[in-house]
Amino acid sequence: MSLLVAWQLKDRRVLIVGGGEIASQRMDSILVTDASIAVIAPEHRLNSRARQLIACHHARITHHDRLFLGPSELHNIDMVLTALDDPERSREIVLMCRDARIPVNAADIPDLCDFYFGAQIRDGPLQIMISTNGNGPRLASRIKERLQRALSGGEGEAITKVGRLRTLLKQKAPGIGGDQGRRRMKWMTRLCNEWELEDFAQLDNAMMKSLLEDGWEKDRIPSLQDVGGTCSTRRYHQNFHSTIPLAVGFFVGVFTTALITFFRHRK
Amino acid sequence: MSLLVAWQLKDRRVLIVGGGEIASQRMDSILVTDASIAVIAPEHRLNSRARQLIACHHARITHHDRLFLGPSELHNIDMVLTALDDPERSREIVLMCRDARIPVNAADIPDLCDFYFGAQIRDGPLQIMISTNGNGPRLASRIKERLQRALSGGEGEAITKVGRLRTLLKQKAPGIGGDQGRRRMKWMTRLCNEWELEDFAQLDNAMMKSLLEDGWEKDRIPSLQDVGGTCSTRRYHQNFHSTIPLAVGFFVGVFTTALITFFRHRK
Repeated sequence: MSLLVAWQLKDRRVLIVGGGEIASQRMDSILVTDASIAVIAPEHRLNSRARQLIACHHARITHHDRLFLGPSELHNIDMVLTALDDPERSREIVLMCRDARIPVNAADIPDLCDFYFGAQIRDGPLQIMISTNGNGPRLASRIKERLQRALSGGEGEAITKVGRLRTLLKQKAPGIGGDQGRRRMKWMTRLCNEWELEDFAQLDNAMMKSLLEDGWEKDRIPSLQDVGGTCSTRRYHQNFHSTIPLAVGFFVGVFTTALITFFRHRK
Repeated sequence: MSLLVAWQLKDRRVLIVGGGEIASQRMDSILVTDASIAVIAPEHRLNSRARQLIACHHARITHHDRLFLGPSELHNIDMVLTALDDPERSREIVLMCRDARIPVNAADIPDLCDFYFGAQIRDGPLQIMISTNGNGPRLASRIKERLQRALSGGEGEAITKVGRLRTLLKQKAPGIGGDQGRRRMKWMTRLCNEWELEDFAQLDNAMMKSLLEDGWEKDRIPSLQDVGGTCSTRRYHQNFHSTIPLAVGFFVGVFTTALITFFRHRK
């Protein structure tokens, strides 16, 4: 079994070797992170998507129009992704990475990978990864679909707002750790437990201010309505799921009873 | 934003520095993987859970009853997790890891981490990780609960069975890549698309054999019933969600109509 982790790529440099379909998928994956990207591939080997990404993100992607030369290419590189049609060349690059102790993923050669990519769901700062430990990528996508149906689509926005609220709270009550830190964490946890996730998405600056003044300073958890919000969207959603069968059942009930009554009267 | 990856720890050695609550959580996380574990912590600093894990998993966990001495401790180590109360010592260890180019996570010091852990769901070979990119661990657990409700609990078993089926298919039709490989992948994808996830959980060896004989060899996708399975559990589950509101609606409808009829008759 693998260890699922969130790898930090801030101020890091990722090297992608290759320019085809998988290489451009890798560019997409890395563009989501904070890393800068180096692509090594002869110009004529770039597919249209790769060309487009390199052109649109020239501040983040540096393209080197050549074949991978050797260990010198790994200077100042923190992660390597090979996406080549040539498994032998991939293997050689992986071995150079091992020597230089650089984490490496070789597309289509699981045995050579330090890490795998999995099916992913992204919504703003929310990232979800699904791994079947190599037992079937198609199943991972099906589970992804199942999970997506469980999400309201408001989670990312809610997380962003909670992050901003936490920053404001830290400005109001600064200090790392200690009593203040514990009190802050406790209040945030209570708030996150009592509010619906989607309620946070409604928070604007004025509401955050009033939440901190009426909530944090008085050591209580105001309701969304208390700070000027409208009723919870999530609860509405959840109830809505039952509304249709409830209504259908009701009308079938009315109709059946009316029918029975009608025929009994005719007798 | 982070890059979510499934890190491979087969034949790898993970060092945990510390013996308290977080250290024992880390042991739990790593025990799920294939790695062997070294724990460096003075005996008297181990909490009861750490003691228990070291005793129960002595084949996988080696305990070194001492403080972390220096760079020599990192010999043959592939990943380091510090779980110390002393941030200064943690920082020193992290710097040694950087020199040795070993990925490191320092508990409670996000700035020093090469990777983070996130909220996780596990079911056999299925692993799901939820990351809010540091915007709130409590929110990650709430999203985890939401996702868990969307899962039937049969996914892990289904994935295991699909893995076994794929192995049997590879034995029947061996070869890496090429036409055979493409045909195998195509058939598996069709099967995974047409069957409900939970249907796979029912497969035993005899059913797998008949699935390959009636399906793969004739290039078709038999139904679960064709290979001797019973009706799909998942569909039943999904329908069940609407059954209760449907029934409630029906009885309310019957009751309302009956009541109206009754009072109209009394007039």
